[in-house]
Amino acid sequence: MAQVDYPEPVKILIAQLKRLPGVGPKSAERIAVWLMQRGREMTGPFSEALAGAGNSVIECGTCGFFATAEKGCAICDNPNRDEAVICVVEQPTDILPLERSGAFRGQYHALRGKISPLDNVGPEDLRIGELSKRLSVGNFTEIILALSADVEGDATSNYLVEVLHSQTDHEFKITRLAQGISVGGGLESVDELTLFRALEGRIGM
Amino acid sequence: MAQVDYPEPVKILIAQLKRLPGVGPKSAERIAVWLMQRGREMTGPFSEALAGAGNSVIECGTCGFFATAEKGCAICDNPNRDEAVICVVEQPTDILPLERSGAFRGQYHALRGKISPLDNVGPEDLRIGELSKRLSVGNFTEIILALSADVEGDATSNYLVEVLHSQTDHEFKITRLAQGISVGGGLESVDELTLFRALEGRIGM
Repeated sequence: MAQVDYPEPVKILIAQLKRLPGVGPKSAERIAVWLMQRGREMTGPFSEALAGAGNSVIECGTCGFFATAEKGCAICDNPNRDEAVICVVEQPTDILPLERSGAFRGQYHALRGKISPLDNVGPEDLRIGELSKRLSVGNFTEIILALSADVEGDATSNYLVEVLHSQTDHEFKITRLAQGISVGGGLESVDELTLFRALEGRIGM
Repeated sequence: MAQVDYPEPVKILIAQLKRLPGVGPKSAERIAVWLMQRGREMTGPFSEALAGAGNSVIECGTCGFFATAEKGCAICDNPNRDEAVICVVEQPTDILPLERSGAFRGQYHALRGKISPLDNVGPEDLRIGELSKRLSVGNFTEIILALSADVEGDATSNYLVEVLHSQTDHEFKITRLAQGISVGGGLESVDELTLFRALEGRIGM
């Protein structure tokens, strides 16, 4: 006897859900069943949201952040932002936390990754050429490197410092984010390297 | 200055993803960004799968499993299945594991939950009336209770035994799944209650 299985449309939905990051086969099945039990009231708006976002959201060709054809890029198209400072991040998703900090109102540039030989990501896979171009065309006085504080992030930062100084003839300073203890955290849970960096980078009061 | 945020379509998508079971605000954002970076090739089929499943999948009025209007229910509409045995489960999702075991080819009845006073689920919230009706109309000789082996599952099983014997005038036996040690597992990781049940339910060799 043929084995009982979900109806075809449910199997197709499970297959799509399984592709999402962090969603395994079990979760995909659980989510699909949950959706089916809620029915059209849930699947309708969800389906429309997906199609709507997929059809209207584009990547800003300049900074790499998300934009729409009608409204453009909320960062690059804003004339009130500082045009002399540019902050380099790995992913477009790193932009919002920096914005929320309120400490920066300049331009951004998302590299779309970091140099990581183990994952087969080399400098040529990142948006470094685009960055050089922006630096030679614009009038930037400072480049802030806001990459991860890990081995790959540090390697990418070092590579950028070397390349950007040689590829462009403009004068600018390159800085990176301070590394140190988290605000609100005690010293007992801080690892040694972070403490080392926090001591190294100590500032006068 | 207005704070930079995701374009509206992305925010709508994040709101929909956040509603899914097991998907928190952080995961919803990560999945949305992942979807946006893949673009229409991913959101198109996903959106269609959702709409397709939402529009065509219905609940089988008899057993509670998923069905489609065109193809009907893969279980209730199959004339080759045993019509004398019915297996009562909590959720329609419990049906597939039982099917995959290959040990049962009868009818099913999903209660859509178990009695759980803490979650405000009483007997009237479950498909118990529908079960009584099926039992009085059909010619069932055995009812297998395949509910969870927890307090609520046991309470629901006990309640069903009482109610079904009193509500219907047909003769049938009621059984429940065996409880014991898992196949392939050693004794060192088995809890005391499971061992107690395994000893109680020991069978001759």
